Amino acid sequence: MNSVRRAVFFVSDGTGITAETLGHALVAQFDIEQFSQTPLPFVDSPERVEEALQQINAAADRGPRPIVFSTLIDRAARERLLGSNAMVMDLFGAFLEPLEHELGRQSAHALRRAHAIADQQQYHTRMEAVNFALQHDDGMTIRQYENADVILTGVSRSGKTPTCIYLAMQFGIKAANYPITVDDLESDGLPNALRPHRLRLFGLTIEPEQLCQIRSERRPNSRYASLTQCQMEVEETERLFRKHRVPYLDTTSVSVEEISSKLLQTMGLERQLY
Amino acid sequence: MNSVRRAVFFVSDGTGITAETLGHALVAQFDIEQFSQTPLPFVDSPERVEEALQQINAAADRGPRPIVFSTLIDRAARERLLGSNAMVMDLFGAFLEPLEHELGRQSAHALRRAHAIADQQQYHTRMEAVNFALQHDDGMTIRQYENADVILTGVSRSGKTPTCIYLAMQFGIKAANYPITVDDLESDGLPNALRPHRLRLFGLTIEPEQLCQIRSERRPNSRYASLTQCQMEVEETERLFRKHRVPYLDTTSVSVEEISSKLLQTMGLERQLY
Repeated sequence: MNSVRRAVFFVSDGTGITAETLGHALVAQFDIEQFSQTPLPFVDSPERVEEALQQINAAADRGPRPIVFSTLIDRAARERLLGSNAMVMDLFGAFLEPLEHELGRQSAHALRRAHAIADQQQYHTRMEAVNFALQHDDGMTIRQYENADVILTGVSRSGKTPTCIYLAMQFGIKAANYPITVDDLESDGLPNALRPHRLRLFGLTIEPEQLCQIRSERRPNSRYASLTQCQMEVEETERLFRKHRVPYLDTTSVSVEEISSKLLQTMGLERQLY
Repeated sequence: MNSVRRAVFFVSDGTGITAETLGHALVAQFDIEQFSQTPLPFVDSPERVEEALQQINAAADRGPRPIVFSTLIDRAARERLLGSNAMVMDLFGAFLEPLEHELGRQSAHALRRAHAIADQQQYHTRMEAVNFALQHDDGMTIRQYENADVILTGVSRSGKTPTCIYLAMQFGIKAANYPITVDDLESDGLPNALRPHRLRLFGLTIEPEQLCQIRSERRPNSRYASLTQCQMEVEETERLFRKHRVPYLDTTSVSVEEISSKLLQTMGLERQLY
């Protein structure tokens, strides 16, 4: 089969992250295979607008009418884009004017971009959270646990590290993580390092079959990766979570975005997406 | 002053990341101080819809008409929401129907969420990129540099680590990073570890004053943090970049989102936002 795929463009005067996020969410409602997606970020001058138009119109000449998701703010640029041979989803056009009307005031209508640094102090806090996650990864250090917003715990390879990093990068949350080892499972109590911080704990668990698969990629044919070992560790760890009333989540087939959002909700942590 | 802030809600049947991303970008066009923002993720059952409605209507009773950004997909849930005492920005409603018309087919109209795992293999690749960034942080190991999509280099504390992590997490890009040290600056050549990978290099630089400030937080009054030292390192490193035609970017006052987007564009790397 050699059918021409429908071209989709994400046009922005900034990073294009907003346009792409919404555009992806929308095209995901259709058969994704039928689209060829092209981000056009930093369309921030009349020359760049003309370049983008050429690229869009060239796609229109080759195949079905392209679809354009745009977060352009500049009025003249938006009007040029609306004159292209494409179906233009003008995100700010669709919502900004109703919002101006509702609020009874003009928007900045300026290149005040969504993913630029608006507040230096806030950005600094967020980058500090990333450093915190890296320094407190995998139980490396337990210093400053009292400064953590949350301490993730669970067996090795249950998804703690990427979750901590995502929480830090996207939400500015200070997340440490501590692995539950076989030694920790010999007693009924929480590991010493965690005991003073019980109310800050959040557990991750995972289906033993998937854990076995993940561990096998790292250390094939090891005892560590064996299904029996994975089953024992998961079972004992979940028992520990329940005994000490540590809230926990099964991460099998769940994305870091979903784990993070659920965690913030469960822990009652204030959420601020960057 | 004791004026009531306008309540803004982000309602979603999933993580709420799409609703919040677009909502933030829109309210950022106004005076952000005037809003109180509340995410309402995982509104995925009739009960949760009613809870969300109560919360929105309660805010309406207390102050000016709330603003709701919604990515709900379920038709009945959307209709309930549109009946609330709020101004509802129904993102999927606004764009999904025109898109269905354009494509001549029905969308899934299902809870196929934007930030859930749609493709297990793709998600795995992305998490592998995160592991790669962590393993290859700060020159820790130079093994597998041939598997890197890009190798970031620059003086200590110029923003390499958070950029690598962002590239991995949001774009699934395998990014290593290698710090340029004072020893590296003694010769005119690229460091040995980098020489075979010149075409994969991307440099970060920073204003010496800001570098001095960042380093001073880590090691106050050290030679490492002194302005003279920062000036020398930055100047010599930029000279090295120019001499070896390594593309580079000044990260002063630039966010990881912007650095990452510019880098992908400069390096001609295919971009796929997750």
